[in-house]
Amino acid sequence: MTEITLTLIGIGTGNPDHLTLQAIREINAADLILIPKKGSAKADLAELRHAICTQVLTTPGTRIAEFDMPRRDKSNPDYRQNVEDWHDAVAISWKETIHNHLPQGGKIALLVWGDPALYDSTLRIATRLLPRAQIRSVPGIMSLNMLAAAHTIALNDIGAPFLVTTGRQLREYGWLPGVDTLVVMLDGDCSFQHIASEGVTIYWGAYVGMPEQILLSGPLAQIGPRILTARAEARADHGWIMDIYLLRRDTNHG
Amino acid sequence: MTEITLTLIGIGTGNPDHLTLQAIREINAADLILIPKKGSAKADLAELRHAICTQVLTTPGTRIAEFDMPRRDKSNPDYRQNVEDWHDAVAISWKETIHNHLPQGGKIALLVWGDPALYDSTLRIATRLLPRAQIRSVPGIMSLNMLAAAHTIALNDIGAPFLVTTGRQLREYGWLPGVDTLVVMLDGDCSFQHIASEGVTIYWGAYVGMPEQILLSGPLAQIGPRILTARAEARADHGWIMDIYLLRRDTNHG
Repeated sequence: MTEITLTLIGIGTGNPDHLTLQAIREINAADLILIPKKGSAKADLAELRHAICTQVLTTPGTRIAEFDMPRRDKSNPDYRQNVEDWHDAVAISWKETIHNHLPQGGKIALLVWGDPALYDSTLRIATRLLPRAQIRSVPGIMSLNMLAAAHTIALNDIGAPFLVTTGRQLREYGWLPGVDTLVVMLDGDCSFQHIASEGVTIYWGAYVGMPEQILLSGPLAQIGPRILTARAEARADHGWIMDIYLLRRDTNHG
Repeated sequence: MTEITLTLIGIGTGNPDHLTLQAIREINAADLILIPKKGSAKADLAELRHAICTQVLTTPGTRIAEFDMPRRDKSNPDYRQNVEDWHDAVAISWKETIHNHLPQGGKIALLVWGDPALYDSTLRIATRLLPRAQIRSVPGIMSLNMLAAAHTIALNDIGAPFLVTTGRQLREYGWLPGVDTLVVMLDGDCSFQHIASEGVTIYWGAYVGMPEQILLSGPLAQIGPRILTARAEARADHGWIMDIYLLRRDTNHG
């Protein structure tokens, strides 16, 4: 039976300088690097994976293979089942590509945007290759680290918690007791519009860590509308957008 | 007036391979690297900063200076004021060290455990040097990334939030509505003992990313007591401990 090791390597948020020494070593230790085929809406991101390989790959024997990234069938109203089916389809695409390029097995690397542990499907898809594959994970700089660094702010207040959440969750649950800092990801709807803005400061960033980076911050009431405009313009310019924001409310809130 | 740039550089969780290319470049761009004087309880950590400089510093002109790390006056019952006073004292120690080594100003680097944005005082202390200093932040691998990578788990369930919190907060607030994943840091008291263990899985790690790394995971009811023992033994062996854990409850909880 062929042996496979799948190493998920966090590559940071778009700045090749976010690569860690460990990530570079793992890229070079791979027999095969799997990269999604170009043609997706986020073509810049696919390009970046190739650029990273060009920049740091020095092992002559390491091959790069592109795999077809299946489209998600968004017609299924069951979101969770929809995602599960899509993960199954991606796993099949990986298996085929691995079989074609590495029929005897070996070390396979996948370059994961940010960190494999945060709002990324790669780890869940990889479990579809168990028990045949051994799975490893290499941490990377996340967009929330980069957002905080770009604004030169701390994620947490002294001894205080913060919640990493989504736009949908923000609309559903709003603020939670004892939690005055929210980091919101995966929010295509600018859900900050749906919460009371009094006493709330927003730190927003798009394309954080990339040359296109845009930053806006200040009182939500004033800056919120400016973010809506900036976001729409940037999205039109680039054809895609990836943004993230941190909301912090005054601890003296009623 | 002398110009100062203070760059806070995230160095990851104890594995020098966590350094990013950006961190290495910033270390080498500094005129002066400030490192806390040895002799603290966490001597291993102070040593690591020196080891990192030895490993990656190639700029001949860059100097390394040790500063006295004032002790926190824990007699003050006002925790917040206590911390503020300590930050003031550290800022004075930095200013003196900078003045002694770089009276004309220049670029100063501080190597920060993990990421400057997470449960770290460096950024808050740095603001004491404003407006004279320009402050910059370079993201780093955090212990929560490393914990997730070591256990090969995702931080979040699909589309779901997670809360990064402290032991004290966990004891005070417990679980929050809609939040089924908690990452607990700064918990010297093993606060997981104080929550109902039914349906809860714990992923625990000590010295994550370091050669001493210890990992334990499983149902809280079974693994909790084993963590208490392992933690006490490791702390006795090393003289200090830094640990972190993730708690996840079944989403079918009542």
